[in-house]
Amino acid sequence: MNYPLVARLLGALCWLMGITMLFSIPWAFPVMGVAPEFERSGCFALLASMVVCFAVGVLLRWLGRDAQMNLFRKEAMAVVGLSWVLATVLGALPYWLSGTCRGRQEADKATPVRMTVYDCLFESQSGFSTTGATVITDLEDTKLVPRSILFWRSSTHFLGGLGIIVLFVAVLGQGSAGKALMRAEIPGPSKEGSQERMQHTAWNFAAIYVALNLILTVLLMLESKKMNLFNALCHAFGTMATGGFSTYNDSVAAFDSALVDYTITVFMIIAGMNFTLIYLVLVGRWSAMWKDIEWRAYLTGMAVVIAAIMAMSIGTYHEFDPNDKLPWLTEFRVAFRYVSFQVVSIMTTTGFGTHNFDTWHQLARALLFLLMFVGGCAGSTGGGIKVIRHVLFVKILGMEIERSYHPTVVRPLKLGDNVTTDAELRSQILLYFGLVTFIFMLSWITLVAIEPESTWTEVGQPVDNKLIDCASAVAATMNNIGPGLGTVGAKQNYANFEPLSKLLFIFLMTLGRLELFAVLVLLLPGFWRSH
Amino acid sequence: MNYPLVARLLGALCWLMGITMLFSIPWAFPVMGVAPEFERSGCFALLASMVVCFAVGVLLRWLGRDAQMNLFRKEAMAVVGLSWVLATVLGALPYWLSGTCRGRQEADKATPVRMTVYDCLFESQSGFSTTGATVITDLEDTKLVPRSILFWRSSTHFLGGLGIIVLFVAVLGQGSAGKALMRAEIPGPSKEGSQERMQHTAWNFAAIYVALNLILTVLLMLESKKMNLFNALCHAFGTMATGGFSTYNDSVAAFDSALVDYTITVFMIIAGMNFTLIYLVLVGRWSAMWKDIEWRAYLTGMAVVIAAIMAMSIGTYHEFDPNDKLPWLTEFRVAFRYVSFQVVSIMTTTGFGTHNFDTWHQLARALLFLLMFVGGCAGSTGGGIKVIRHVLFVKILGMEIERSYHPTVVRPLKLGDNVTTDAELRSQILLYFGLVTFIFMLSWITLVAIEPESTWTEVGQPVDNKLIDCASAVAATMNNIGPGLGTVGAKQNYANFEPLSKLLFIFLMTLGRLELFAVLVLLLPGFWRSH
Repeated sequence: MNYPLVARLLGALCWLMGITMLFSIPWAFPVMGVAPEFERSGCFALLASMVVCFAVGVLLRWLGRDAQMNLFRKEAMAVVGLSWVLATVLGALPYWLSGTCRGRQEADKATPVRMTVYDCLFESQSGFSTTGATVITDLEDTKLVPRSILFWRSSTHFLGGLGIIVLFVAVLGQGSAGKALMRAEIPGPSKEGSQERMQHTAWNFAAIYVALNLILTVLLMLESKKMNLFNALCHAFGTMATGGFSTYNDSVAAFDSALVDYTITVFMIIAGMNFTLIYLVLVGRWSAMWKDIEWRAYLTGMAVVIAAIMAMSIGTYHEFDPNDKLPWLTEFRVAFRYVSFQVVSIMTTTGFGTHNFDTWHQLARALLFLLMFVGGCAGSTGGGIKVIRHVLFVKILGMEIERSYHPTVVRPLKLGDNVTTDAELRSQILLYFGLVTFIFMLSWITLVAIEPESTWTEVGQPVDNKLIDCASAVAATMNNIGPGLGTVGAKQNYANFEPLSKLLFIFLMTLGRLELFAVLVLLLPGFWRSH
Repeated sequence: MNYPLVARLLGALCWLMGITMLFSIPWAFPVMGVAPEFERSGCFALLASMVVCFAVGVLLRWLGRDAQMNLFRKEAMAVVGLSWVLATVLGALPYWLSGTCRGRQEADKATPVRMTVYDCLFESQSGFSTTGATVITDLEDTKLVPRSILFWRSSTHFLGGLGIIVLFVAVLGQGSAGKALMRAEIPGPSKEGSQERMQHTAWNFAAIYVALNLILTVLLMLESKKMNLFNALCHAFGTMATGGFSTYNDSVAAFDSALVDYTITVFMIIAGMNFTLIYLVLVGRWSAMWKDIEWRAYLTGMAVVIAAIMAMSIGTYHEFDPNDKLPWLTEFRVAFRYVSFQVVSIMTTTGFGTHNFDTWHQLARALLFLLMFVGGCAGSTGGGIKVIRHVLFVKILGMEIERSYHPTVVRPLKLGDNVTTDAELRSQILLYFGLVTFIFMLSWITLVAIEPESTWTEVGQPVDNKLIDCASAVAATMNNIGPGLGTVGAKQNYANFEPLSKLLFIFLMTLGRLELFAVLVLLLPGFWRSH
């Protein structure tokens, strides 16, 4: 293991974080139009955190002063894995130093409750992993949550999304199948895999990502009066990183604008696309889009789930027209607005909300729960297992059933026009699903064991919901969505959980974000010892 | 496909079923001490069903008159798969012809409700697949359920268990890894895989199975006055087949005897063991038991779950001592009796009950839910995924994580003293878990979609429980357990479900019983066409 190089690269990350914190400081001043008075605590917390970031950065740079610049796979994995750990700790500092509160005490509805260390780490990891799960009950009270800190909270989404696109997709080349197949198509200055090509891709992707953030910000500002620069930036960050942190307790519903809803829906769909595909379209190769089986499956999947939920809603349960007053077409329009937003929000693993989907019919709840495991396309900022893995998974299962009575037949595994017969890929896909299932089950049983039943009874929720609520909390964190069902549902949050459970969630968010392996290897002593 | 041979072998099954029905007829006569008066409907239904069985048997024998006796893998799969389908249809006849009732109407608590065609097929498949899920609400009312039909119901368990041991384990050689490793150790007249050896094994296993049934019957009769020959036989059939049909509404709790509970617990553990292992122990090779990693994992798993449930119960929730009256040791004893019975019952996929585990703490419910997927050992009558697959699964996951940063390292896969490096086996194990997960998720969402929410609201259950109840119903049928959680919990049954849902359950029970492949291939047109 080339430790000096790892230290050097992590040092660069610290400086990037310090610089990003700078952009949150202006919002502490009333002149920007969001903070009612100068936010002393927020401003100084950010300044102090910047000092820490730069100090750690200098230290790591010094430790890596003699680094040889050979980045092999092992070092890349270590950097990617450790960068999320480091970012979480440093990113938690502003919450902690500013004394941000997660809400007020239930008993008197007055005494502010400060965020604990676990809360700060949770919120920070939730931001960097672009999950968007929160422990803050009241975002709108400026006395509890300084605006500058709220901006930092959304900035962590921006940084996290950038990190995935640059570090994870471009450098580590993760995203498996879809990436591997598309990679060869990206034009670059030199042949595949070389360091210049990697840097070229990384810069291109970063530019696209920043541009999309800015375009969405401008669009949102034009569409709603409530969308000032602060809100527009925060929601653009939340959208393009498929994060989901909002600046309102009601999330995107606070703007109450169909235009805003549909705009964010479209940009969530873009954010869930493979960045290589976006790049190819931007350089004029539209045909890549129609040829891409993952992209087609991604849109088809969304459409099918939206149609299923709407059909059962309009046909039977009428959540969007409980008193049967609306004309059929109006009910359809209302349902389409909310259902399409919510399905896209969950499938892309963003987690924004415009309607309390936890009150929809049970099929909707079940479908949204399953969608959490689908996620966006490979090579996007979206979390989850990724669409391409599901496409391959279903194809592999079909082939293997046939093989059980015809062991000698080997059919090529087709992906659109591409054909792959790679046995290693087949086994990797099955392995990934196996790992996800195993980690999900283990985390679920652990959460059920460590979280006492009083967490439900004290807030008046039926304790029998514990099993499904815990399952959804694990799914929503390990797939980087944010909201789940029941006690972590659309109108709820993670504040009530025990510190130990929050640590579990932090681990799961990192694990999901880095597609398991980059985190799991960090836990193996052999990874650090071997060469 | 050698159709004549398939027909001939299925014809033999029909005759076996007809002969077995004969043994149910005596219980229609009051002289046997269980029917209060002569059961005309039950007796004639059984006689008529026997005629149908023999007629179908003769027809199939005639169709297979020119069969060449070469049994290849494809034919074996077809016979095994179709035999469960045929048995289900023929086995449903006695219920249907006798006009057996599943209970009385909710409204007036008087009008008997006859079993529908779907109910009859469900009950029959539940018996043959040794699931033990039932639609009959009141088993004890002799006016609704003739005793002779009740005996036929338990006989289907006996036949199903025998079929698994003989057809599935000995002939098809299913049971994968554990079987493959142990097979070589069985002494037999000729070399492995030959037809004589197969027959030798089949006869031996059948003899052991019948003997264990008889021993348990005698033991039960000695232990409780309520255990007359009828009850003892029915409960022995339910135990040794890991089925779970009882003759009382309260299941084994009706006997209220710790001795009966512990006896059945021990025999359930035996029924969940690999029959090859039982055979080896019987011929004096005790060492095989200690060397068998699956058997050790099976017992360890049980012990850990029992300890976890008891610890949380005695430590926090006190389900067995709600008023805190009992001395510590007594509470421990009571808890051990009920918890060990229930854990063994679910893990071996038997499904008997002595306590309403649905009222236990949530960790117990979650653990029992997960245990459903573990199941018994390979080569036993137990359902589920099987212990050996879990052992291999965990080993493979660990190895593959290491391979992700060290792709060139190939470690041997160790199973106790045996070493296997078979890449095919690794991929088969991952595939099996993938298929189970896929089928489970698809069935869950289908059930949530087709079963209306009124199934919960009409019986006063919270509709939010639908997701977990449906998940447990799918798990309990596809793993051949019987009872699940909530509306299909320990004190409930499957009567309230829609016909379409019952068809789904029937499919899942068959699928689980035959370890997926033997059923899935039947759905492929290519399976029937190719040679």
